[in-house]
Amino acid sequence: MRPLLLDDDRALPAESGQRTIARRLYTEVRDLPLVCMHGHVEAEVLAGNEPFDDPASLLVVPDHYVLRMLVSQGVNLADLGVPTRDGDPVEADPRQIWRRFCAGWHLFRGTPTRYWLEHELALVFGATVQPGIESADLLYDALAEQLATPEFLPRALFERFGIEVLATTDSALSTLSAHGRLRSDGWGGRVIPTFRPDVLLHPDRPGWSRRVEDLAELSGVDTSSYDGFCEALRARRQAFVEAGGLATDHGHQDAGTSPLTQTEVSAVYAAALAGDIEPSAARAFSGHMLHEMARMSCADGLVMQLHPGVLRDHSGEVLARHGHDCGFDIPIAAEFTRNLRPLLESFGRNPRFRLVVFTVDETTYARELAPLAGAYPAMRLGAPWWFLDSPDGMRRFREAVTETAGFYNTTGFVDDTRAFVSIPARHDLARRIDAGHLARLVAEHRLSMDEALETAVDLAYTLPRESYRYG
Amino acid sequence: MRPLLLDDDRALPAESGQRTIARRLYTEVRDLPLVCMHGHVEAEVLAGNEPFDDPASLLVVPDHYVLRMLVSQGVNLADLGVPTRDGDPVEADPRQIWRRFCAGWHLFRGTPTRYWLEHELALVFGATVQPGIESADLLYDALAEQLATPEFLPRALFERFGIEVLATTDSALSTLSAHGRLRSDGWGGRVIPTFRPDVLLHPDRPGWSRRVEDLAELSGVDTSSYDGFCEALRARRQAFVEAGGLATDHGHQDAGTSPLTQTEVSAVYAAALAGDIEPSAARAFSGHMLHEMARMSCADGLVMQLHPGVLRDHSGEVLARHGHDCGFDIPIAAEFTRNLRPLLESFGRNPRFRLVVFTVDETTYARELAPLAGAYPAMRLGAPWWFLDSPDGMRRFREAVTETAGFYNTTGFVDDTRAFVSIPARHDLARRIDAGHLARLVAEHRLSMDEALETAVDLAYTLPRESYRYG
Amino acid sequence: MRPLLLDDDRALPAESGQRTIARRLYTEVRDLPLVCMHGHVEAEVLAGNEPFDDPASLLVVPDHYVLRMLVSQGVNLADLGVPTRDGDPVEADPRQIWRRFCAGWHLFRGTPTRYWLEHELALVFGATVQPGIESADLLYDALAEQLATPEFLPRALFERFGIEVLATTDSALSTLSAHGRLRSDGWGGRVIPTFRPDVLLHPDRPGWSRRVEDLAELSGVDTSSYDGFCEALRARRQAFVEAGGLATDHGHQDAGTSPLTQTEVSAVYAAALAGDIEPSAARAFSGHMLHEMARMSCADGLVMQLHPGVLRDHSGEVLARHGHDCGFDIPIAAEFTRNLRPLLESFGRNPRFRLVVFTVDETTYARELAPLAGAYPAMRLGAPWWFLDSPDGMRRFREAVTETAGFYNTTGFVDDTRAFVSIPARHDLARRIDAGHLARLVAEHRLSMDEALETAVDLAYTLPRESYRYG
Repeated sequence: MRPLLLDDDRALPAESGQRTIARRLYTEVRDLPLVCMHGHVEAEVLAGNEPFDDPASLLVVPDHYVLRMLVSQGVNLADLGVPTRDGDPVEADPRQIWRRFCAGWHLFRGTPTRYWLEHELALVFGATVQPGIESADLLYDALAEQLATPEFLPRALFERFGIEVLATTDSALSTLSAHGRLRSDGWGGRVIPTFRPDVLLHPDRPGWSRRVEDLAELSGVDTSSYDGFCEALRARRQAFVEAGGLATDHGHQDAGTSPLTQTEVSAVYAAALAGDIEPSAARAFSGHMLHEMARMSCADGLVMQLHPGVLRDHSGEVLARHGHDCGFDIPIAAEFTRNLRPLLESFGRNPRFRLVVFTVDETTYARELAPLAGAYPAMRLGAPWWFLDSPDGMRRFREAVTETAGFYNTTGFVDDTRAFVSIPARHDLARRIDAGHLARLVAEHRLSMDEALETAVDLAYTLPRESYRYG
Repeated sequence: MRPLLLDDDRALPAESGQRTIARRLYTEVRDLPLVCMHGHVEAEVLAGNEPFDDPASLLVVPDHYVLRMLVSQGVNLADLGVPTRDGDPVEADPRQIWRRFCAGWHLFRGTPTRYWLEHELALVFGATVQPGIESADLLYDALAEQLATPEFLPRALFERFGIEVLATTDSALSTLSAHGRLRSDGWGGRVIPTFRPDVLLHPDRPGWSRRVEDLAELSGVDTSSYDGFCEALRARRQAFVEAGGLATDHGHQDAGTSPLTQTEVSAVYAAALAGDIEPSAARAFSGHMLHEMARMSCADGLVMQLHPGVLRDHSGEVLARHGHDCGFDIPIAAEFTRNLRPLLESFGRNPRFRLVVFTVDETTYARELAPLAGAYPAMRLGAPWWFLDSPDGMRRFREAVTETAGFYNTTGFVDDTRAFVSIPARHDLARRIDAGHLARLVAEHRLSMDEALETAVDLAYTLPRESYRYG
Repeated sequence: MRPLLLDDDRALPAESGQRTIARRLYTEVRDLPLVCMHGHVEAEVLAGNEPFDDPASLLVVPDHYVLRMLVSQGVNLADLGVPTRDGDPVEADPRQIWRRFCAGWHLFRGTPTRYWLEHELALVFGATVQPGIESADLLYDALAEQLATPEFLPRALFERFGIEVLATTDSALSTLSAHGRLRSDGWGGRVIPTFRPDVLLHPDRPGWSRRVEDLAELSGVDTSSYDGFCEALRARRQAFVEAGGLATDHGHQDAGTSPLTQTEVSAVYAAALAGDIEPSAARAFSGHMLHEMARMSCADGLVMQLHPGVLRDHSGEVLARHGHDCGFDIPIAAEFTRNLRPLLESFGRNPRFRLVVFTVDETTYARELAPLAGAYPAMRLGAPWWFLDSPDGMRRFREAVTETAGFYNTTGFVDDTRAFVSIPARHDLARRIDAGHLARLVAEHRLSMDEALETAVDLAYTLPRESYRYG
């Protein structure tokens, strides 16, 4: 069994001069509260506050980073306990799932998953050995035992992690009932919803018209016309605002934002309701709606987040068998300069508007995103997203973006995770990498130490709050 | 007030072994004359040799890097003194503008603007405090006082900066009168023009046909036919050659260079003159004309520079209100392999031809530009341009380009600035970064020290001269 | 004359802490056998085992890296002894060619060619001075003398280099006679063929239908129908399997893999045979055939290699005068997420299938290739290819790929060279760079030393064997 040792200087620069500076910067920010303005933890987890089931269903089954890596080396999703859509049985023994994960531990060498899991195992669970074939059962038992204790209930962990605020992501059709229960329990403002209307904005996806009916029912607004549809969306946004929501989130395949004319959009909407819409018209509608979401943000103040550029469910067979979020979402090239232009022309200089843009196509960092964010007051660059939320990914982000957009046109760290227990590890890693980046600037005499200290705090704490208009 | 301290080792590698080597290399080149083969300082500045007005109109108002960053955080262009097209009043008090700039000083942390301005303030003006709210007036007064002295007249600064030659950029329609006055004053050959025919090569831009008439008048050649148009262009190029010009410069949105047939181009030209041209035909004409400019370069020896891939005036509202060059020019993805092929097939192996290519899309460095420049004898890669003219941008350029194109298919440093006082800072930074890059090669035993010393001098001095056939 | 000194620590990280770790890792792998699973050395070289002619025809004339760099600075291909297609005479004196190469030695500063050649000159030939005008004849004579000795016969060098296995690349129409002679000599299994059917899969290239006839003759299968064509391809693949082949290789301009219907493909095939095929149909056929090659790989077990994204013979004039492989092949932007989808949907989760993908467009590393290889079990990422097979290219590859795909979805090193004598230099460089990358992870406490040691061996030796199912 290999020991699990977390060095205090992990993920800081290797070179001793920069490390010394980075350590000083990191010390300043390591214990700041965690501001989690965007993520995928379910509000229900904290509303229910039930114990987590077992190590596998907490750390393996729901984590698409873990699943995909094991699958890439021949493990079946079913053998990892991922449910099938048709109810075909899958591995039901969490210990077996855990063993398969531990047997593949070497696959994660050099990945952020490895970093996060080491942090979680060592600092959340107190483990002292690395996962591996020999240590699998030992670790399983130790974790399972702890998960049964009150100290590992979701709210206890939330407090222990030092989370100041946690934004969930909620369908525009959510009743926000879990958020309501949280508010009753005095957790209002600590767990807040985010408005995600994707299911309503892509009229060629299966079930769209049924969801438009749900929207009508939920909002009490007739959605048989495009104007009614917009009115209903405004009503839902208002419900999120009232539930403490600060932002919207949009996952589109491309970043197109061209508005249609009233005539055009009404016709497309009617055709879509009639179930008779071309893919190109559907795409035009989606782009138009992003433009309209920005307009609504100017009115209701919700910060608009855009996460484009991922081709979801690349393997149709995996989708058919196991559904979404199994690790087969693959990035595609993104374009922002032309795509965001209509939206930015309309609202990019409006002081009431705030747009936060994420990408998994880092070729756009220096070429398009930093120049745009470094010009339009409404725009901020979100943290490196998904595959780029990693030590070298974050380093490349700062190196590509800072010289053109500065630090203050970025949002600081956004964890964007559905793995609740990984939240502190992710913030910790980001703080270390930002400390390392600042340390290089100090060591190269491009920034003074006191400015670097200020900036480190801003990136870890001030900017996420300010960017999302929290607090 | 924060002290303004310029460390002697700034922008050299942080690691001590490489820094020692880099310092040795930098020492060899730091005092070499500045060869400024491309830029946007107006010849009139040196011809007139009038004192600069005040710190704000020298360092803030005309600098699109500074403007955009302040605007990105909510400052209005009008409050920064940028004139409006309709004459609406803007901030007229340079001290107020300077204060606004100083209040946003933290925004520039980690940017090259910060590096350049620190260098200018400390080494040109002798300032000892950083800009900030508290220091704004102190700095303003100190700078203003100096600007009124003879030592700060343009020609005095030119000498003090050690500029050997300065190329301006001049419209193909320029009478070059300022250059003429410079020649009379004995400054011929020190300040030289560059032929920029953009206004004549995009027939769908407003005012094109009027400019074609101006061309006819200026050249004395009838431009009512395409052949006459070319003849007039050749005449203008000749006038630039006679005024000491060594190069042409071309800013096109894409790098297309496909020639049209004589019949096609004549028809497009006639349609354009008649004011009846499709955007696609206009674009085809522009690409054709790049091909023809190369042909003319083979004849008259002018080095051809290409700066493609920028979508100018992204915000129509800013354009309408304040005009061009306000910081809203945003890069787009560029393509060179296919686009330059027609031009390179025709002229790329012609020993009389020289093409210098710049890009703001660094994804093309290793993939397209270095392979092309490492094959065609006519082609050289210009220095990292615009947003990439920065410490990390230059470092990435050398890392992406050198292994495929070597050092000797690059031009060495080209400052490309309209900010006269920043010229020494820019050359100094490039010399430091190149020293750092070479130092890494030496430290990794990939290059001997004496070869690195030779190469450092070549990048700083020999290659810019040789690439532009100067001297 | 400059001394030629190979430092033991060359290409290891400059920073002393990382260098110490890297040296320890490199020591572990430096003497491992060379597993050369893909390359372009001719089997005839080893079958014939004749002495190499002279230094120029060994090291200069056939090396497109060397040719292009000299050409880029004005040297003619004819003056470098590159034969003309029409038989026009070219430089016949190898000493003159060698002198021209030595005169351009400075052009290679900072390039991998420089690294490889230094390694070859110093460690294979024992040279002690760098190439240069003064040393040219001295080096030429020393090398020529050694090339005449038995120790420099191809098989002797093969043994001395520690090559365990060498895969050649052979046309699908090759009779594999050289491989047959090698087998008779007891070299079967040490030199193995690779099936390359490019000449048969692009029906719009000149001579395609004649080659389809050759295919029929060689395979004894009637190729007048599409089904017969496929049957003949299967027969040829089988012949390669029987000759010890382990893989196929495919060089397509794009990575498209969409299958056609039986009706469509039969019609396209018939049209192609009739000499009446549109470029778009030819391209569709090529993509379809990649899909079918994958299907055949599932049946016969040959590992499928894909090398897309190069625009061959950019200069038509060079092609017409000197033919292929003269240094005028230029990369273009590549796309994998959508292009590989049909193939991966069909076979990407088939345990009998293995796909190794290479690219010269590194923007796809992090965005597309690592996510795909980190999901589909059949897919592995090949080593950095061509212009990216360089110190910084390999470093960027590991930094871009590892965090998403890990180490174990890559193939380890693949040398891919036609320069036989450069093989040890290339493996040595890759081992050093991988050691440096792992050393950084260790120094940043992201990986333990014993895991790094394991991984170093896997990258240098285990993964190339396992990825190609060798041994």
